Amino acid sequence: MDIPVYSDIEKAHEIVKKLAHRTPVLTSSSINKIVGAELFFKCENFQKVGAFKFRGACNAVFSLSEEDAQKGVATHSSGNHAAALALAEKMRGVAAHIVMPDNSPEIKKKAVAGYGAQITFCEPNLQARESTLAKVIEKNGATEIHPYNNFFVIAGQGTAAKELIEDKGEFDIIMAPVGGGGLLSGTAISTKHLLPKCKVIAAEPAGADDAFRSFHAKKIIPSVNPKTIADGLLTSLGNRTFAVIMDKVDDIVTVSEEKIVEAMRMIWERMKIIIEPSSAVPLGAILEGKVNVQNKKVGIILSGGNLDLGRLPF
Amino acid sequence: MDIPVYSDIEKAHEIVKKLAHRTPVLTSSSINKIVGAELFFKCENFQKVGAFKFRGACNAVFSLSEEDAQKGVATHSSGNHAAALALAEKMRGVAAHIVMPDNSPEIKKKAVAGYGAQITFCEPNLQARESTLAKVIEKNGATEIHPYNNFFVIAGQGTAAKELIEDKGEFDIIMAPVGGGGLLSGTAISTKHLLPKCKVIAAEPAGADDAFRSFHAKKIIPSVNPKTIADGLLTSLGNRTFAVIMDKVDDIVTVSEEKIVEAMRMIWERMKIIIEPSSAVPLGAILEGKVNVQNKKVGIILSGGNLDLGRLPF
Repeated sequence: MDIPVYSDIEKAHEIVKKLAHRTPVLTSSSINKIVGAELFFKCENFQKVGAFKFRGACNAVFSLSEEDAQKGVATHSSGNHAAALALAEKMRGVAAHIVMPDNSPEIKKKAVAGYGAQITFCEPNLQARESTLAKVIEKNGATEIHPYNNFFVIAGQGTAAKELIEDKGEFDIIMAPVGGGGLLSGTAISTKHLLPKCKVIAAEPAGADDAFRSFHAKKIIPSVNPKTIADGLLTSLGNRTFAVIMDKVDDIVTVSEEKIVEAMRMIWERMKIIIEPSSAVPLGAILEGKVNVQNKKVGIILSGGNLDLGRLPF
Repeated sequence: MDIPVYSDIEKAHEIVKKLAHRTPVLTSSSINKIVGAELFFKCENFQKVGAFKFRGACNAVFSLSEEDAQKGVATHSSGNHAAALALAEKMRGVAAHIVMPDNSPEIKKKAVAGYGAQITFCEPNLQARESTLAKVIEKNGATEIHPYNNFFVIAGQGTAAKELIEDKGEFDIIMAPVGGGGLLSGTAISTKHLLPKCKVIAAEPAGADDAFRSFHAKKIIPSVNPKTIADGLLTSLGNRTFAVIMDKVDDIVTVSEEKIVEAMRMIWERMKIIIEPSSAVPLGAILEGKVNVQNKKVGIILSGGNLDLGRLPF
């Protein structure tokens, strides 16, 4: 099983830094006062396509050989990964084949189509997604880019924490939300290489706590009927992300829906930036007292800013 | 009548740059594509107290003599100016006396009290506000700082456009929203001094179009029963702001409520930043075709980001 190490993240960064935004790191003195710590937010909500996913997609697409690239890439996704892959392929000038459930929100269908991707719709279940994707790949010879359990995707996601540490120096703790684990494993590889003493702590919605349970059981426990407003964190870990997490992550904690919403609103109101619920999970964990940050310097990766403004939880 | 010139804005900037944020200037390639122009947004939503008002308040408070400062400052306001003045006085370490209508939103009362201001509540009408303020001033000898029709306030607000031009060079057009005209007149003084060929165009909600009518009638026409979602733009011009506007502003255009909301949502969705409705009025004017920006380089001052997230128009 191929798992990236820090030098792979350095290589990824050579690609990513040319194509993605070096997103800003913001602070809020009023939130610092509330939590009694110094928090530094890495703003991937300002990333291209509005999420960190562009880093991994872009590294995966631009790491392909010319021959493979010409056959295009393929994935099934209804979310940020689809848009990220579509944009990365548009930048490279070749085809992206995206399999989307036919009940995906119109806004997401439009976003993916807007980047010029070729969309194949399927029934909204995992079996239909996988079998449709297999057909698309058979027909086109495209390379599958898994949204998180992929060597180049993990390496690409690790560039966010690398930039955070390059820009702001040492940290006591770096936090990220965990869904499939792509962001978390990339973050852990960068952090433990650059700052071996820094703790890496992940936060997960209590209503989708498969990574928390997997971490403590030391085996992958799949996500079953997860329910949370943090819709980017519904997926199960993959074997690559799980291996990195077991090796390098210090702790995974869970957060109530109430604290996720409270943290999201706090960031919107105090920092005047728009983040999606998944981004609010680490601050939610701090507000819920699940992570002791007193007088510590804490980096938090805000994963993205894509959500339906017509359906806010407040 | 004392009206600031550019050297007063330079003096103001010496004070403001030490105490206020130098806010970022952001761009959006997708909004640029929609409007066919290059737009640069000066983000005063990220300013202290969440609005450009801190610039003027801070210049007014720190321009007082030591003797006057000890007696404090006073104003009547239910909005951003009250919070801005309260914070500026807290920084200088003396008293701010704020007269607020007793029906002001709880969140605003708390914000002002949170900065340590002394609040005097009054009935929610202009007569009660002015008579209560007169009593407070008589009792304390405090200096009144009008929210916009004040020499130092206008000079302070002009530092936003000064920074925008310093950071991004020449512009074809610079736009600001207009309410009482403090931001607009400061913007016009800076712009016409630094870039004499650049047009200064203000945008105003059609439902509160007193500045538009005053500008075209060449006399101050007070605001009567204004009605707009852009609640920072309800006030009438003052004699100082009107004089600057007649001298230096190229045009004032009006915008429908529909386009204000569309522009606000566009900035939220595409730029992932939170702006208040007043900030969206210039982009609304562009979307409504009221300002020809084709292939032009346009600076837009986003006035602030304070609004009740529980009462969004979408």
